[in-house]
Amino acid sequence: MQFPSKLVEDAVNQISKLPGIGKKSALRLALHILKSDEMFTHDLAKAIVDLRTKIKHCSICHVISDDDICSTCSNINRDKQLICVVQDSKEVLAIENTNQFNGLYHVLGGVIDPINGVGPRDLKIQSLMDRVSEGNVKEIIIALNPTMEGDTTSFYISKKLKQFEVKISSIARGVPMGGELEYADEITLGRSIVTRTNYKVEE
Amino acid sequence: MQFPSKLVEDAVNQISKLPGIGKKSALRLALHILKSDEMFTHDLAKAIVDLRTKIKHCSICHVISDDDICSTCSNINRDKQLICVVQDSKEVLAIENTNQFNGLYHVLGGVIDPINGVGPRDLKIQSLMDRVSEGNVKEIIIALNPTMEGDTTSFYISKKLKQFEVKISSIARGVPMGGELEYADEITLGRSIVTRTNYKVEE
Repeated sequence: MQFPSKLVEDAVNQISKLPGIGKKSALRLALHILKSDEMFTHDLAKAIVDLRTKIKHCSICHVISDDDICSTCSNINRDKQLICVVQDSKEVLAIENTNQFNGLYHVLGGVIDPINGVGPRDLKIQSLMDRVSEGNVKEIIIALNPTMEGDTTSFYISKKLKQFEVKISSIARGVPMGGELEYADEITLGRSIVTRTNYKVEE
Repeated sequence: MQFPSKLVEDAVNQISKLPGIGKKSALRLALHILKSDEMFTHDLAKAIVDLRTKIKHCSICHVISDDDICSTCSNINRDKQLICVVQDSKEVLAIENTNQFNGLYHVLGGVIDPINGVGPRDLKIQSLMDRVSEGNVKEIIIALNPTMEGDTTSFYISKKLKQFEVKISSIARGVPMGGELEYADEITLGRSIVTRTNYKVEE
């Protein structure tokens, strides 16, 4: 692509480094920025830099946070006997948005992935063991993605947790709510039959 | 959507002001920025601010440019008898990328749009007349979008240009290259029959 201006080219090159944004989308965004309010570009740039430089991680659960201890961990109304183990902060957000979970989280910061050089020591697994060893935790819900790496990590953590008296569970997998059986893949459908639950009649 | 951090919320709010980026995409970008190299965020922020604050417009054709006169207008190899009138700088880019045009451009900076308060005086129409009145221009190609506003603007410009001895043309509209007739809309197909061209046998 030819650019009429080095400034546009630089902006397109930087913007297109973001995931899911190609050169064409980046150009569209750059041309929008050109026409936008100058104040907006300063606000946008500041928000991006602040986000990267000022963000902290909760010293207990390692989720991204503005303070040393996140709002979930410092909330006295949350159930401290229940810890949900997730890969990343974005899964915390996704679960929080369901409003169905009132326990605490533990963000591993990744999954065991030997091909990309990520071992158990690179993750916040020891810190999870430390939290459990304090004795207040009754149940650990493992909510990692169903990939090879996620399953390996789930297995590793569950073995490590065996030494403690703690219940280990994993989030339910099955046909999505509203999903038609016809269109479900056979592995999901098969597993949803094997792990069937009791039918509850709401009275 | 709940955010675990004010910094993330600010960034999502700013990023989602960009066109075509909703809250979910903005969050995905924000989480990517969180994990990215700190240098990248500074480069990205700088490119955005520089783009908005340092960009100039060519004093001849009004396209975005790093210099007072753009690389097209200052290029001695371009045909100065031919001016292509477009709405915005992005159309200049699109036409340049075809490598099929060797004339100059004239960027109006919009189209006549009374509903949004854009009149002929808000556009670079007088500046086009000034360029044509110098007498060197032989042909004006009007390449505005086929919207009501674009057509109105084309009509206005063509009437204004009547006082000069200059050929006025418009880009060809028809069935896209490789497009099947079956799937072309009837207005395009109808117009492509009315404005049919001589069949050229390449020898």
